[in-house]
Amino acid sequence: MIAVLAGGVGAARLLAGLVRVVPPSEVTAVVNTGDDVVMHGLHICPDLDTVTYTLAGADNPDTGWGLAGETWQAMGSLGRYGGETWFNLGDLDLGTHLYRTGHLAAGVGLAEVTAGITAGWGLEPTLLPMTEDRVATMMTLADGSGGGDEVGFQEYFVRLRHDVPVSSVRFDGAEASLPGPGVLDAIAGADVVVVAPSNPIVSIGPLLAVPGIADAIRARRDHTVAISPIIAGAALKGPADRLMRELGHEASVVGVARIYRDIAACLVIDSADADLAGAVEAEGMACVVTDTVMSSPEVAADLAKVVLGATS
Amino acid sequence: MIAVLAGGVGAARLLAGLVRVVPPSEVTAVVNTGDDVVMHGLHICPDLDTVTYTLAGADNPDTGWGLAGETWQAMGSLGRYGGETWFNLGDLDLGTHLYRTGHLAAGVGLAEVTAGITAGWGLEPTLLPMTEDRVATMMTLADGSGGGDEVGFQEYFVRLRHDVPVSSVRFDGAEASLPGPGVLDAIAGADVVVVAPSNPIVSIGPLLAVPGIADAIRARRDHTVAISPIIAGAALKGPADRLMRELGHEASVVGVARIYRDIAACLVIDSADADLAGAVEAEGMACVVTDTVMSSPEVAADLAKVVLGATS
Repeated sequence: MIAVLAGGVGAARLLAGLVRVVPPSEVTAVVNTGDDVVMHGLHICPDLDTVTYTLAGADNPDTGWGLAGETWQAMGSLGRYGGETWFNLGDLDLGTHLYRTGHLAAGVGLAEVTAGITAGWGLEPTLLPMTEDRVATMMTLADGSGGGDEVGFQEYFVRLRHDVPVSSVRFDGAEASLPGPGVLDAIAGADVVVVAPSNPIVSIGPLLAVPGIADAIRARRDHTVAISPIIAGAALKGPADRLMRELGHEASVVGVARIYRDIAACLVIDSADADLAGAVEAEGMACVVTDTVMSSPEVAADLAKVVLGATS
Repeated sequence: MIAVLAGGVGAARLLAGLVRVVPPSEVTAVVNTGDDVVMHGLHICPDLDTVTYTLAGADNPDTGWGLAGETWQAMGSLGRYGGETWFNLGDLDLGTHLYRTGHLAAGVGLAEVTAGITAGWGLEPTLLPMTEDRVATMMTLADGSGGGDEVGFQEYFVRLRHDVPVSSVRFDGAEASLPGPGVLDAIAGADVVVVAPSNPIVSIGPLLAVPGIADAIRARRDHTVAISPIIAGAALKGPADRLMRELGHEASVVGVARIYRDIAACLVIDSADADLAGAVEAEGMACVVTDTVMSSPEVAADLAKVVLGATS
């Protein structure tokens, strides 16, 4: 059994590779819900949906998010009324949010709702929300016109295009949250725990802030492998490098090692950072060097093989 | 100023005629919200939307409801998960519900939300929800497999296709509800109050159940004209005749007269019922006979002219 701590796109690609090298039913992803947002009354879980759509092979290659074959009629209509359209919701994607929102309103838990959604796509891996409680990643803007203001993650990420400096991040509600159903068992029972190449601050950070999850992983440190989302000092996508710098971390594989060394015994870094392997080891982690740019599911599968071999 | 008590399709057609014969800005429709339903977390106001879309000339001629040019991607996606799709929501239509739900959740009242929607379509008439409080039309099924069960209006109307006998109707929440902003003033200040050819039981009934509205209309009885939705003993569309019979009314213009005689001085009936004009008058109402089948906006405009002339 493999447990993967997952954010969005990077984790989704790794999972798509992983299910090519192990039986998909043996894969459980524990997925960040700190990015979740209620828009227009609908409960939206961007990371769960990105992982779902990617594993289903239904992800949209044009946008890099959402569903293939998407249309935008509802947003056009919302725009007619001057409604908020900065968080773009495709018509097909809306079906997912309608299903989720209706079932949550009827008292069904997010884990069961998520199982209903993955079943709709015929997925064999298990996707578990990190928690069924509300945890909201909140970003304090550092300066400029919004200095000192705190905004929700999607407002930072989508509306402001993560193009603003951040002075702090917190996970509202995390202290009182419980791990979602199955999460601790998935970690405790895994042969390998993988920390996907997701943003350490805002994708993996919320997971580790849910009381119990970080301890469960620390207990499995010898079987835990992290993959650096930083390659040659930069994130392939998104603000991981920038956020790390702004929050006082080094935006390098060494900085990633310092974040993960307490929970993972091994860090997988890209060949471009081969010269830093020794520096990673100096932080107390084993270091494996390989190609980590998942340009295709085949490359992702090769990376998954390396990751699974790293603890044996 | 003209105030129109309105349900859905029949009222929408009358209003489309009315705005051709008086300045549209002088028309206020007080619209039934007893049909409103929350589906998948979205607040849906079928009668307000039918009136809006029809006045905008954007109604769907193929379905008889919803928007022209509609697509159904979200429902297809919802169906993938086994979600409830019996209440069909088009993608364009969803934009309206997203706008409404988001603004209601932010604390904006339904009257202001409705004004935002009509402004989006550039409508000059004013549409007022009968109340901003929750009033839900509830139907008790008479017998058969669902005998004794109480269902919401949309479940009766859409899911069961109003093809089941009903033993009683009530308007849950009506007793504690207040007329919506502007409703009583619109009635008190109107030169003519028109009761549209909507279902007397489930479209006009909820309006009259909101405390204060029936009294306001009774005070204007001499200036109030009702149009019979029953023609030759049948409704053009929907279950008005059936519901009237099931609830002990006569499904005829005379039965309509008995329902409206306390609030309206005049009943407009179709030429097909000309022989019943005397029987209507015997119920204490003036009776005007004309063509009431609104097969085009031009015919609706002719009917509107007759209605406006009926109290002068």
